[in-house]
Amino acid sequence: MKLSRYFLPTLKETPSDAQIASHRLMLRAGLIRQSAAGIYTWLPLGLRVLKNIETIVREEQGKAGAVELLMPTLQSADLWRESGRYDDYGAEMLRIKDRGDRDLLYGPTNEELITDIFRGSVKSYKDLPLNLYHIQWKFRDEIRPRFGVMRGREFLMKDAYSFDLDREGARRAYNKMFAAYLRTFDRMGLKAIPMAADTGPIGGDMSHEFLILAETGESEVFCHRTLLDLPAPPDGLDYDSDLSAIVDERTALYAATDEMHDQSAFEAQVAEADRISARGIEVGHIFFFGTKYSEAMGATVQGPEGKLIPVEMGSYGIGVSRLAGALIEANHDKDGIIWPASVAPFDVGLVNLKPGDAATSAKCDDLYEQLKTAGIEVLCDDTDERAGAKFSRMDLIGLPHQLIVGPRGLEKNTVELKDRRTGERQELSPEAAINFLTSQKERA
Amino acid sequence: MKLSRYFLPTLKETPSDAQIASHRLMLRAGLIRQSAAGIYTWLPLGLRVLKNIETIVREEQGKAGAVELLMPTLQSADLWRESGRYDDYGAEMLRIKDRGDRDLLYGPTNEELITDIFRGSVKSYKDLPLNLYHIQWKFRDEIRPRFGVMRGREFLMKDAYSFDLDREGARRAYNKMFAAYLRTFDRMGLKAIPMAADTGPIGGDMSHEFLILAETGESEVFCHRTLLDLPAPPDGLDYDSDLSAIVDERTALYAATDEMHDQSAFEAQVAEADRISARGIEVGHIFFFGTKYSEAMGATVQGPEGKLIPVEMGSYGIGVSRLAGALIEANHDKDGIIWPASVAPFDVGLVNLKPGDAATSAKCDDLYEQLKTAGIEVLCDDTDERAGAKFSRMDLIGLPHQLIVGPRGLEKNTVELKDRRTGERQELSPEAAINFLTSQKERA
Repeated sequence: MKLSRYFLPTLKETPSDAQIASHRLMLRAGLIRQSAAGIYTWLPLGLRVLKNIETIVREEQGKAGAVELLMPTLQSADLWRESGRYDDYGAEMLRIKDRGDRDLLYGPTNEELITDIFRGSVKSYKDLPLNLYHIQWKFRDEIRPRFGVMRGREFLMKDAYSFDLDREGARRAYNKMFAAYLRTFDRMGLKAIPMAADTGPIGGDMSHEFLILAETGESEVFCHRTLLDLPAPPDGLDYDSDLSAIVDERTALYAATDEMHDQSAFEAQVAEADRISARGIEVGHIFFFGTKYSEAMGATVQGPEGKLIPVEMGSYGIGVSRLAGALIEANHDKDGIIWPASVAPFDVGLVNLKPGDAATSAKCDDLYEQLKTAGIEVLCDDTDERAGAKFSRMDLIGLPHQLIVGPRGLEKNTVELKDRRTGERQELSPEAAINFLTSQKERA
Repeated sequence: MKLSRYFLPTLKETPSDAQIASHRLMLRAGLIRQSAAGIYTWLPLGLRVLKNIETIVREEQGKAGAVELLMPTLQSADLWRESGRYDDYGAEMLRIKDRGDRDLLYGPTNEELITDIFRGSVKSYKDLPLNLYHIQWKFRDEIRPRFGVMRGREFLMKDAYSFDLDREGARRAYNKMFAAYLRTFDRMGLKAIPMAADTGPIGGDMSHEFLILAETGESEVFCHRTLLDLPAPPDGLDYDSDLSAIVDERTALYAATDEMHDQSAFEAQVAEADRISARGIEVGHIFFFGTKYSEAMGATVQGPEGKLIPVEMGSYGIGVSRLAGALIEANHDKDGIIWPASVAPFDVGLVNLKPGDAATSAKCDDLYEQLKTAGIEVLCDDTDERAGAKFSRMDLIGLPHQLIVGPRGLEKNTVELKDRRTGERQELSPEAAINFLTSQKERA
């Protein structure tokens, strides 16, 4: 993409109402723009990040056997009356009347709707296990939307729903998502720690939140240091195998948010040197709630002996739009964002230091085409702004690599390659730069 | 994908309330399921089609220079008060009050919101031309939602918005979208005919609808026969070149929907043998409306002489979810859907005629892996249903090819390959079948 034909409205000043780094940087780097309180437009650069996050989530859900569908944003209130949640849910649910005076709502979550789809289609235990998910916009009418996309009102969530014949099967489904979540966050370069959690309005018997540590996190978290060191399950994990060791290894160690924290248990179970007290951002939440919805809504299957059995269910959420903010909280410096390669909006920023110079522009065009041919996503700054402004903008938007091309370097057949994270710069030939970037891309 | 692990709830019976073929077939083939009046869940197979349509739309928008962002579904009513449309829009607009009693609405279109984004970011004519688009769910509170996704309430639309300094620039922007639309629909195997159109609630000076001919179309259309024969612009079209010949060639020929039809002009301009009277389905609509929104909302740029100039705008819509229905109206027979290869949910259906037979299953697994390795999307029917049910289902869901594997064929090292559109079947070796399907995929 050539910047002269792109839409990247960066801000020079820091917006005064943005309290945390990710909110400030998302506004300044032209990733998002507020449209109403807690409601954002994803500008082109931000949308590319959002799509990359989505893709990782989708790939890992697929590997774990979850099947994607897409439920609508608006739901009929009648379904929520069946489960009893329509009255329980409170003011965070956006309630709507259509022109025929029928009650609709903007889905804050989808247990009722997916249960309705299930009961209308699945009749036999032979069709189980089943895990259905979607990635769709949700709405929660927060009384004080803040922190940008971290606590917005309209937000993008991945929510999966598992259906099993018995508790043992449901536990396997839960373990699959548990492992998939570890892999998902790991691919984004995040260390997410599962913590026993309160089940809140979803309800149920067992629940874990996945939190990443960050100073600006909304929760206080307490955990065993070893949880920071455990590696994520490997690519190629066999999801049909017994995954309980992956779950047990982690859940055996103390980890809790302030809501669930028990200081005396923490001190009894964890040696002082291993105690971590920090702040965390919730990026995922999984629930096992058994037959809560299937019994209320009549979602039964015929079991092996012919009897109708209400299915055992769980639900599994990832905050897709929130992750864009969380990733910045975990990856930034005073100059701007530092995207992990797996979610970066472009792989490399190509900076033309002198667009007026024919030789420099020709070399930039050549490099641009070579990079594209190699499957490397490139944003070329071909504007006529001064070099300093270009450097600042590239640092601000945080692409992993910058390839800087100017007439002085080209005289000795060199370009400059900058690593955004380390700040390291090297002069090398254009060919060597392309080779290096290609090898980086192939490794990813 | 193995069918035993997928979610494909097909229906045996034809739903009684579905009046047109696409609605019936989308329900029967397990593509969609109604969640509320005019509001649908896209089941896994339907979602794959929707994503394929989206991808074609996105690619062609990108080639034409439009830049993707993503506006939210809910908008503030205040913006619509600025343009004057909040009161004008009528009962089709879904109006919402949030918990703070502020007026929101579910966007039926986005002229106001994009104009707000533009005026907040773009200040100089040097940043023009600009074309911004998104693919997002919209809501129109139809009084009688019907025909499934063809006239639903919650629907997916691609809407692009162009900004230019003057009318000449705006005309170039209009022509780019005109050409891109011809290419977009052509890639889906659809012959879309541009027709002079009424501008309706969007307003403006010039407008074309793109219609495909189908018996169940909601509009009566009248056009010159030659319009059916003109080829779409080629891949690799230079969008920076003068595209007016592409537009003029088409707009010079008579084409109008009933709303704009003038029978005497039709008869005067078109020889009787060249007159087509048919029914059509609108799949796209483009508008040039000049400064209607930019003046009302103060979207100005500094011109070359330093004066503030309200920008000239157009908007360009494609009914993405509606296209899924339109494609079926144009591609089905008595047995079911016949997907064009470019939008098919899978390229091939692999039918295991005897999953109980170890050799047959091993060969199916082998073919399945080979197809996946070749980049061919395959749905393998590995269920233990009888062969007849499997054949009917494959015909119903309409994948372009069926690869049928059974023990009798394997004894002589053959499988059967069926072309869904022609019905043609051939017996050939498994290797030859893979080669054929690979060559088909490469051609696409």
